[in-house]
Amino acid sequence: MCRNCDFTIHAAQHHFGWDNSFAPVLRTEPGRTIAFECKDASAGQLTAQSTVGDVATLDFGLINPVTGPVFVEGAEPGDILKVSIHDFTPSGFGWTANIPGFGLLADQFPDPALKIWSYDPDSMVPALFSDQASVPLKPFAGTIGVALAEPGLHSIVPPRRVGGNMDIRDLTAGTELYLPVEVAGALFSIGDGHAAQGDGEVCGTAIESPMNLTLTLDLIKQTPLETPRFTTPGPVTRHLDAAGYEVTTGIGPDLMQGAKDALSRMIDLLGRQHGLSAMDAYMLCSVAGDLRISAIVDMPNWIVSFYFPRIVFA
Amino acid sequence: MCRNCDFTIHAAQHHFGWDNSFAPVLRTEPGRTIAFECKDASAGQLTAQSTVGDVATLDFGLINPVTGPVFVEGAEPGDILKVSIHDFTPSGFGWTANIPGFGLLADQFPDPALKIWSYDPDSMVPALFSDQASVPLKPFAGTIGVALAEPGLHSIVPPRRVGGNMDIRDLTAGTELYLPVEVAGALFSIGDGHAAQGDGEVCGTAIESPMNLTLTLDLIKQTPLETPRFTTPGPVTRHLDAAGYEVTTGIGPDLMQGAKDALSRMIDLLGRQHGLSAMDAYMLCSVAGDLRISAIVDMPNWIVSFYFPRIVFA
Repeated sequence: MCRNCDFTIHAAQHHFGWDNSFAPVLRTEPGRTIAFECKDASAGQLTAQSTVGDVATLDFGLINPVTGPVFVEGAEPGDILKVSIHDFTPSGFGWTANIPGFGLLADQFPDPALKIWSYDPDSMVPALFSDQASVPLKPFAGTIGVALAEPGLHSIVPPRRVGGNMDIRDLTAGTELYLPVEVAGALFSIGDGHAAQGDGEVCGTAIESPMNLTLTLDLIKQTPLETPRFTTPGPVTRHLDAAGYEVTTGIGPDLMQGAKDALSRMIDLLGRQHGLSAMDAYMLCSVAGDLRISAIVDMPNWIVSFYFPRIVFA
Repeated sequence: MCRNCDFTIHAAQHHFGWDNSFAPVLRTEPGRTIAFECKDASAGQLTAQSTVGDVATLDFGLINPVTGPVFVEGAEPGDILKVSIHDFTPSGFGWTANIPGFGLLADQFPDPALKIWSYDPDSMVPALFSDQASVPLKPFAGTIGVALAEPGLHSIVPPRRVGGNMDIRDLTAGTELYLPVEVAGALFSIGDGHAAQGDGEVCGTAIESPMNLTLTLDLIKQTPLETPRFTTPGPVTRHLDAAGYEVTTGIGPDLMQGAKDALSRMIDLLGRQHGLSAMDAYMLCSVAGDLRISAIVDMPNWIVSFYFPRIVFA
């Protein structure tokens, strides 16, 4: 599938969770370019024909498969694995769900919900949410990481110092990501393709899509790095910022509560402005809107803001 | 000074702190456009000739004067005051300080520091920080608010549900800001001009500048609003995003610690990449870099990221 790749790792070569005893599916020297085929975060449990009932019966043992692991020859604890992300080939199918018990406002949204998306993977024009709203697309992989030093199986869900399920919206094509290596060979895996997501992924899911991608793995020897960092080659929000933003705030001494308040107020605002149901607004916020820390020094109150791009309704 | 304004309020007409017993300096019906002349956040204590010793002896009783208050005829509790921000006329002089005890990393930066800026208020080309670094400018007012219902004098420092010292980087020209009214006449005041600031204002100060501005005050009667919200007419970061970003992360179960970790790692990175002192990097981060919540649903770990625009060193 990839003309300039040295290797292709197929989607069947995946694992669930992180465990440094998993056998590598590929051993390679640094500097090679690799194509990864990646399942969606439901490992195919949700399809274009799925309904909300399928969300309630998801098998969480099959959540968030990642393709790999890749053993990078010469990688040792204390090194940095440099991941140059080249491009994505999204599938055109996607889903967004509210999964009970998961998401920033889980207590306010106890019921399952499912939105099925169909988008043009060639043009990548904004994906229709409704006849009113469309969401600009910018694909990336939600889960990118290496194995932990600690033995045993570790949940795929939380991000950690070695990366993993970071769900960072800007890890798009052209980005260079730096990950701390903790075990020999690094044991790199990737998956959880997202066609679009806002900062925070507030309802817990993005536009979840099966997706293929290519990247190059390089080593930087014996250089300290505490948690992942990355470099973007250019702007990160120009695909969605042209019409400006609606912004709500949460103000108080706790950042988490501020984030919940700002988001709740945006859901209310989108409902008033566009007649959206609260659930639809919550899911739209997750795939298109951003949480930002606007103020964090004027004691004792901080401001967390929720930025919703007006282009969605333009 | 303003050809299309109905009124001008001069900088001498300022107050310190919020108190709904302060006498209005202007009474006006809604819909009028007003020019405000605003002192800098030191009320003139810091000048182009100031040195770091002047930071240590700042009189905090004179911090953050705001011009006003304006009594808007017909404003009543439960209304919304709509503030249409038209334009800013910055002075060309600015300062950034590390004030001991203040700032996100106050424990790591106990010593005072002062950076004096000189920028072209007509061209507003990026302001020189050093022969290596320059900072894109986009002026706004850090403090915009109305009086609280609670009687007595309230500190100017924290932002509150009625606005105040919000230090929101995107309250720039063209923005429409909505504030909840709590007292008759609203009692609107504004000040704390910033020529540039990143989200979070992490060292505690921006490029603090005396600045004049114009705005129109309108009323929306009896409409619920819990905390300020605003609408931006267009993109918010295009003045600084062209060269992309360096991004560091803080990962863990506490957003405040994540913010501190991400910032500390950016200060270290800028030091390694550009030979900056930690204090210089801290101040540059405050005037140009952004705190964002990248991930907040993948329990138990969240990710706060610090985005530093590479154009500063381009």
